[in-house]
Amino acid sequence: MSIRHPVLASSPAPRRTLLAAALLALSGTAAAFSPTVVNTNITEADVRSAQEGWGKALIQISEDHASGGLSKAKATAGAVLDAAYGYNMGVVLFKPTLAHGQQTFRTTRAGALAYFVGDDKTYPDDTGFALKGWKKYEFKNAGVFINGDLALTQGHVMLTDKQGKVTVVDKTWGFKKDEKGQLRIVLHHSSLPYQPAK
Amino acid sequence: MSIRHPVLASSPAPRRTLLAAALLALSGTAAAFSPTVVNTNITEADVRSAQEGWGKALIQISEDHASGGLSKAKATAGAVLDAAYGYNMGVVLFKPTLAHGQQTFRTTRAGALAYFVGDDKTYPDDTGFALKGWKKYEFKNAGVFINGDLALTQGHVMLTDKQGKVTVVDKTWGFKKDEKGQLRIVLHHSSLPYQPAK
Amino acid sequence: MSIRHPVLASSPAPRRTLLAAALLALSGTAAAFSPTVVNTNITEADVRSAQEGWGKALIQISEDHASGGLSKAKATAGAVLDAAYGYNMGVVLFKPTLAHGQQTFRTTRAGALAYFVGDDKTYPDDTGFALKGWKKYEFKNAGVFINGDLALTQGHVMLTDKQGKVTVVDKTWGFKKDEKGQLRIVLHHSSLPYQPAK
Amino acid sequence: MSIRHPVLASSPAPRRTLLAAALLALSGTAAAFSPTVVNTNITEADVRSAQEGWGKALIQISEDHASGGLSKAKATAGAVLDAAYGYNMGVVLFKPTLAHGQQTFRTTRAGALAYFVGDDKTYPDDTGFALKGWKKYEFKNAGVFINGDLALTQGHVMLTDKQGKVTVVDKTWGFKKDEKGQLRIVLHHSSLPYQPAK
Repeated sequence: MSIRHPVLASSPAPRRTLLAAALLALSGTAAAFSPTVVNTNITEADVRSAQEGWGKALIQISEDHASGGLSKAKATAGAVLDAAYGYNMGVVLFKPTLAHGQQTFRTTRAGALAYFVGDDKTYPDDTGFALKGWKKYEFKNAGVFINGDLALTQGHVMLTDKQGKVTVVDKTWGFKKDEKGQLRIVLHHSSLPYQPAK
Repeated sequence: MSIRHPVLASSPAPRRTLLAAALLALSGTAAAFSPTVVNTNITEADVRSAQEGWGKALIQISEDHASGGLSKAKATAGAVLDAAYGYNMGVVLFKPTLAHGQQTFRTTRAGALAYFVGDDKTYPDDTGFALKGWKKYEFKNAGVFINGDLALTQGHVMLTDKQGKVTVVDKTWGFKKDEKGQLRIVLHHSSLPYQPAK
Repeated sequence: MSIRHPVLASSPAPRRTLLAAALLALSGTAAAFSPTVVNTNITEADVRSAQEGWGKALIQISEDHASGGLSKAKATAGAVLDAAYGYNMGVVLFKPTLAHGQQTFRTTRAGALAYFVGDDKTYPDDTGFALKGWKKYEFKNAGVFINGDLALTQGHVMLTDKQGKVTVVDKTWGFKKDEKGQLRIVLHHSSLPYQPAK
Repeated sequence: MSIRHPVLASSPAPRRTLLAAALLALSGTAAAFSPTVVNTNITEADVRSAQEGWGKALIQISEDHASGGLSKAKATAGAVLDAAYGYNMGVVLFKPTLAHGQQTFRTTRAGALAYFVGDDKTYPDDTGFALKGWKKYEFKNAGVFINGDLALTQGHVMLTDKQGKVTVVDKTWGFKKDEKGQLRIVLHHSSLPYQPAK
């Protein structure tokens, strides 16, 4: 949620301010439209920023693993889940790339944490996707659908590890903007590309 | 709903195009975000444009009444209701300025038309609010609340008639963006300012 | 936001549970639809409950004023504004029945509190609308428009004071469901009925 | 969008009527809440019905292929895309189970039709997913997230062909309710389960 209010003029609201500035430049009169505008909608800039945030967080967990071991990686992963996923909203529809069988869907925070950093006996097949030495990410959205405080994206994500090996995944995200203006992942479906028989 | 698609690059989508251009100017890379973005949300620019549209329509009905009589005014008012109100969505919550008693709320198109141009035996007290020779309008929004495809505004509207007399009303609107990107009034509460006893 | 989750089966969620029970009765298989459903939408039952809550709160302030004087009434009114209005979301579009002139719109909490209980030098004309000895309320909705987490209502509200005098107002509300499932008033336009010249 | 209006009492609105009946049974006074309620939100019942519709449509295309050949299957598939997908809204984020490479994402109707029935030189690898003799479908939702007129689901779908072979896919859907009350798929990510190396 972004708020523009005269008495809040000095408060930080970078994305909103940029957009307002852009609109001002276009119209010359945006400031007169209303002294107070509250807008709960997601913008393209929000979505791009959230995707970047996800990529940076994945790399951060990998780096923290390298520098501080599992406990540091686990703390970072937990913080990422709390800040950028919607488990606090009741459920996240999360199908991680390598999850399978009875544990394909990680609708709880515990299931997501196990997937990212492993070390959980309840999820014995999880080896920690975020611990694989990721160094670089790139997004190639095929489409974006913005609907109120929810945005859906679909496309390829390219992840590069420390050996320079690139993993491509087919990725779908749903982001919901919470009351503080933070985008949270409420939907995440990741899968390895289909390999046709040769 | 606004759509940005490469194959639609030549189609007209003025508001969206301006915003995209503004974002491009800000970021330099908006075009790479996704080849296709659909956005169903209302923007501030949409709301401002819809308010302007309402003011212009009111004056148009007055002018058509002056130049072409009641039948021309009625045709224009009907067209305005069909294009800019949400009666096609099932209901409009409409409390017009001078409506009262059992006919205070005009939740149907017939009730709204009667209010604007009168001439309907079912609404005997209606004399046609839009026929009062309006020449000028001005908006002073106190606040705007944007929530998905719905935007709420509240503030003063100043209407000037051909004698130069200014009528101030307290005005609340709810606009919903339809599937074609058109904003429709689904809520309209207008009232004369409270006059305290002296 | 309502959440249905097996591990939360014993938690209190009265409205949701009733609805789920009703759906179960209809279909016989609702429980199998999904182990976890999160639903952020407003329901008719939510809206009715919020309207009732507003009526009860108004009477409570009046009663607290009678039993505990202005300070008690003010405390209750503040609690009502914090629990049931959306000032925490950045703005409320509030046009109270008797507000007028430069202070017609009470987009801040301070302005709303002054309107309900007076005693604020910034708002010298406010005598405290909630202190008028209200005993009974009744709603007669003309229409309801539900759109996501936002619901709009319009209709008559009849308030009866301790002398048995009934005041009728034309009332428009916008309710937004917050992340905790609480409906908050983000729009409120109240006006005395128009009195045609005789 | 569902509409309840006294003068429309005889019009067909089955899902809404059931819900209204259920609420009536619960409260005894739902009818008095408002003479007119418009509700644009998706319900759980809507989502279940849309999932069932997708399953039935897939089987119908297979059956029409068996009985009437490719042209009949293609006509049915086209009708399904027009009725139940959101290509008319500007884009569908569609990652079909077996699509890959440069043609992984089928954001256009042509790409979706090719995937379901093949026979399109632009998509040389498509052999027609809907032509595989499907006889039965089953859904097992892991979670559902309902947000305004948009609902997200994630879970397993089990498809059985005429030889009795069962194919399991990991499936994510996004449904948007259009202005006529029809749910349309705006997001669809389907993938084969991950097979861990042994």
